[in-house]
Amino acid sequence: MNLENRKLVLIGTGFVGMSMAYTFLNTGGIDEIVLVDMNTDKTIGEAMDLSHGLPYASSRIKIKAGSYADCKDAAIVVITAGAAQKPGQTRLDLTMVNAKIMKSITESIMASGFDGILIIASNPVDLMAYVAQKVSGLPTSRVLGSGTILDTARLRTLMADYLNVSPTNVHAYMMGEHGDSSFVPWTHAYVGCKKMLELLDEQHKGLDDLHEIYRQVQQAAYEIIEKKKATYYGIGLSLNRLVRAILDDENAILTISAYQQDEYHERDLYIGVPAVINRSGVREIIRLPLNDVDQQKFFNSCKTLKENIKHIEQELNWN
Amino acid sequence: MNLENRKLVLIGTGFVGMSMAYTFLNTGGIDEIVLVDMNTDKTIGEAMDLSHGLPYASSRIKIKAGSYADCKDAAIVVITAGAAQKPGQTRLDLTMVNAKIMKSITESIMASGFDGILIIASNPVDLMAYVAQKVSGLPTSRVLGSGTILDTARLRTLMADYLNVSPTNVHAYMMGEHGDSSFVPWTHAYVGCKKMLELLDEQHKGLDDLHEIYRQVQQAAYEIIEKKKATYYGIGLSLNRLVRAILDDENAILTISAYQQDEYHERDLYIGVPAVINRSGVREIIRLPLNDVDQQKFFNSCKTLKENIKHIEQELNWN
Amino acid sequence: MNLENRKLVLIGTGFVGMSMAYTFLNTGGIDEIVLVDMNTDKTIGEAMDLSHGLPYASSRIKIKAGSYADCKDAAIVVITAGAAQKPGQTRLDLTMVNAKIMKSITESIMASGFDGILIIASNPVDLMAYVAQKVSGLPTSRVLGSGTILDTARLRTLMADYLNVSPTNVHAYMMGEHGDSSFVPWTHAYVGCKKMLELLDEQHKGLDDLHEIYRQVQQAAYEIIEKKKATYYGIGLSLNRLVRAILDDENAILTISAYQQDEYHERDLYIGVPAVINRSGVREIIRLPLNDVDQQKFFNSCKTLKENIKHIEQELNWN
Amino acid sequence: MNLENRKLVLIGTGFVGMSMAYTFLNTGGIDEIVLVDMNTDKTIGEAMDLSHGLPYASSRIKIKAGSYADCKDAAIVVITAGAAQKPGQTRLDLTMVNAKIMKSITESIMASGFDGILIIASNPVDLMAYVAQKVSGLPTSRVLGSGTILDTARLRTLMADYLNVSPTNVHAYMMGEHGDSSFVPWTHAYVGCKKMLELLDEQHKGLDDLHEIYRQVQQAAYEIIEKKKATYYGIGLSLNRLVRAILDDENAILTISAYQQDEYHERDLYIGVPAVINRSGVREIIRLPLNDVDQQKFFNSCKTLKENIKHIEQELNWN
Repeated sequence: MNLENRKLVLIGTGFVGMSMAYTFLNTGGIDEIVLVDMNTDKTIGEAMDLSHGLPYASSRIKIKAGSYADCKDAAIVVITAGAAQKPGQTRLDLTMVNAKIMKSITESIMASGFDGILIIASNPVDLMAYVAQKVSGLPTSRVLGSGTILDTARLRTLMADYLNVSPTNVHAYMMGEHGDSSFVPWTHAYVGCKKMLELLDEQHKGLDDLHEIYRQVQQAAYEIIEKKKATYYGIGLSLNRLVRAILDDENAILTISAYQQDEYHERDLYIGVPAVINRSGVREIIRLPLNDVDQQKFFNSCKTLKENIKHIEQELNWN
Repeated sequence: MNLENRKLVLIGTGFVGMSMAYTFLNTGGIDEIVLVDMNTDKTIGEAMDLSHGLPYASSRIKIKAGSYADCKDAAIVVITAGAAQKPGQTRLDLTMVNAKIMKSITESIMASGFDGILIIASNPVDLMAYVAQKVSGLPTSRVLGSGTILDTARLRTLMADYLNVSPTNVHAYMMGEHGDSSFVPWTHAYVGCKKMLELLDEQHKGLDDLHEIYRQVQQAAYEIIEKKKATYYGIGLSLNRLVRAILDDENAILTISAYQQDEYHERDLYIGVPAVINRSGVREIIRLPLNDVDQQKFFNSCKTLKENIKHIEQELNWN
Repeated sequence: MNLENRKLVLIGTGFVGMSMAYTFLNTGGIDEIVLVDMNTDKTIGEAMDLSHGLPYASSRIKIKAGSYADCKDAAIVVITAGAAQKPGQTRLDLTMVNAKIMKSITESIMASGFDGILIIASNPVDLMAYVAQKVSGLPTSRVLGSGTILDTARLRTLMADYLNVSPTNVHAYMMGEHGDSSFVPWTHAYVGCKKMLELLDEQHKGLDDLHEIYRQVQQAAYEIIEKKKATYYGIGLSLNRLVRAILDDENAILTISAYQQDEYHERDLYIGVPAVINRSGVREIIRLPLNDVDQQKFFNSCKTLKENIKHIEQELNWN
Repeated sequence: MNLENRKLVLIGTGFVGMSMAYTFLNTGGIDEIVLVDMNTDKTIGEAMDLSHGLPYASSRIKIKAGSYADCKDAAIVVITAGAAQKPGQTRLDLTMVNAKIMKSITESIMASGFDGILIIASNPVDLMAYVAQKVSGLPTSRVLGSGTILDTARLRTLMADYLNVSPTNVHAYMMGEHGDSSFVPWTHAYVGCKKMLELLDEQHKGLDDLHEIYRQVQQAAYEIIEKKKATYYGIGLSLNRLVRAILDDENAILTISAYQQDEYHERDLYIGVPAVINRSGVREIIRLPLNDVDQQKFFNSCKTLKENIKHIEQELNWN
């Protein structure tokens, strides 16, 4: 396993991946970024555009267009590639298409001799992380999905605006599938070290506001897509945060899509939970004692995912 | 009130103040820093030494040696000046000496026409903040002491090491007097969104460890002073954090010494509590529902401070 | 003039403007960014997408969708709006269309009571800066175009790769029109404090390589557009650099489009030259003693611009 | 050779070394810093003081008190240890004392199995770098002294103030011994891409001012020591810059003390010259064509150093 270098390979140079790549010019934290895409011309153009900003950026990073062979000695590979939903296509159809793409990409990555950490940002992310782990054969701790990392950021941003405090002092998680069945365990939400529910009570604010904020978070992607066609800046910064938590061996707690081994009473699937992230990937999942309502939401979230996993396994002829 | 500029005046160029000043060369966030000290030669030397690093620093800051007149249009004045304990001198004697110094410094600052935010880092900090507020006549929200901001950082650092998680995910406060009577309300301590006491229980760790960590935090200053004569790097970063929370209008929650108005059932004194900090200073104090034991510790902490306030008021002939 | 706040208004939320906006989340240096666009829905979506990354960003910035009224108290307004070239449309036709758009935008900005610094990034940038200054009536020092700031970054990046040194140690300028008639005064190019021509000579490298590098810089925009449809990351970082040079009162030397008053023997037009940038805008233009060949290139560059200015003045009925 | 880790060992926890260590909390760029000093108690106190600021610092770094054994897998070892001049002690006597200390330290470092890059900041730095290289047997490219890196920063700071431009746009070098015989090759000094001598001429400024600025730079250390007893903030930032140029493989040009192999017509000594710095250490020395006066100053600077080297070699019984 590559423990010390800071080489990152990005598979897929759409706006999500490129937004992440762009952030590293100012945050630093990586030594090299290699752009890989089916459209090799585009990777060259993107590498040019990025690198032209280097004289005005605060960090020195090597940027280049490359190929799967570059994964060999990479510390981290981030996959953002995938097909977009076509008119008339069902979500399930799209999932099957992307599962095949993910299988193919993962095989190409592993063929290089890759032995690092694999981050999946392609959607549906919990299922794609599952496919990537199974295909790669890498330890489950070294394959993770972006999961609800952005949903949690959205939640913290909206709660921070609502309560007029810094988002850095809002501690709350979006958990579950990165999709419609996600949920917030509000009894485990805090502002600083104060229970959020107590704070709302003091301020004579009701639970209706929380439901409305949850709704906004859960609808945010749809709303942004409606207004600007796609969402990429928020996820770009989220992926940057995740990569640096790994490379800086931070042992930071982030809500990502992690392989379940009964931490929340489910097994053998990927889903968004708070986890400790360091140089070895997902060190462990933080177990919150969910109340019955939230645990049921988690089970529901898992149920949907498991049905999809069955379809995927049939489609990919795994049995 | 100076709401928009980012001019900082530092009164006292000892190691605490200068360590803070030094950090701004890399963090930025201020436009100008003016060094003021009785020893004007020293301020010139310090300004030279700092400014010589500018070509290699990441931010552009104006640095100069100045005088009290520079406070006139400053957004923030930080006071770190004060006498050190002499052999044979009691703590009370030292407090009286420093109260007089603080009175004199505050008068000089106000004589300039200063109308910004006053941060006190001189010890005993809770008492010195009290003196500065009374002498200045500034609104209580615009005079604050560094309080337990560093104690809290120490607590988070030690807890992070103990639990092997990032200090950014340890949420806990040192409260009370910056001194021997401080305390940690452990029932309001969290790792991510998980209760710290639950986490310890899961890991079969006992409360003895927490007491030991509290003891280490509370003794840290003594131990560092024994080993390296003084403590300044930790407080330097803490003051930088505080200044930026103000200038960036962050609404960040930090444990600082704030004027009490019954938030924790005491009035008319300064003591370390979590508070929301923004461009207007201390916006509000976060009220945690302390259990009886912790509330009693808070009262004890206040009792000591109030006795000292009486002595100070006699000494300064206030009645 | 707004000397102390750090409020930035962005007119035009295309990829160039938004890439600039995105960089500020990690570099800081501004307090607030307001997004303005004819497509108000898009501004809302962009503000949402940006702000969702805040919990993982290193700086605290207020982000909002706004309107021209927000320019009133802004320190800086950056204009990136403009029409794109349509098939069959000549460059001159496009220039006329954009001149009218620029006139209208500038009038809207000035109607707000704006009294800060105006940065134009819309193309053709030298002509648009001219229009914006004439329409605004602001001092010429407070209206500037992005000019050859990105061309210079590209030059430095390519020279750095060619010579295997850090781009921060390549000192050279692209001057003239941001377009096909730009040029590099090679006799004023340095690597560290060593003349670039001497260094090439020592390394037995010929002038052909320099011509090739110039050609690549000059063709870079075309090539990137061919490969990825548009260019925005490099210019985004360049605009961030320019804004911070102003707000941090850096007196930094950057090649931007500045109003000419005989510094290079031409008057009353905007064109790319090295200039000292600070809180008051363009403090002064740095005069390099150009050799005859380079001076001729500068005159040629001006000639094209002046012809266009005549067309614009007719079109806008200025006489 | 350790090419990929970012572990730094600091030998000597005086103010110079600790000021450097402190800067990394905000700049990042290293993964781990280990403090080593004869006074082990002090290293523990310093590590405590530094680490307590971590929750408020922008980067995650492992900080610990350690021993020479930690050099084994370090990428870089920085030596700041050395005796201070005692009353009545001649500079030569002090040099002999420090040469012995440097020999002993270098032997202890090499005994660990160290195979990285050695940076010497102990004074007299050019001679100490020579001793460290000879004792270590490391390639000359991997042993370097801080040389005139700080003198150059001081020169740029003072020139920037004098000319009212950003220090990042002042390109000039202090060369020669880090001491009284250093010099500035003014014909190779630039402001942006403009010759400094031409700029002064335009502004009707005379060479007297340059001589005065040189004098101030050359006397700066004495003046700061007189005013605040020691100088450490400027050199702390300079060492941070040097370490990051190495670890980020920047190929940056910095004036450091490098082993001479006829680049400036002298051999087998260390002295301050501009050099390209990257992950392999000193990649190459930049050769400026010095005029006769400056070349003579360089020879004079070397002459003093060579006499001292003879003394050192006798003292250490090398022949």
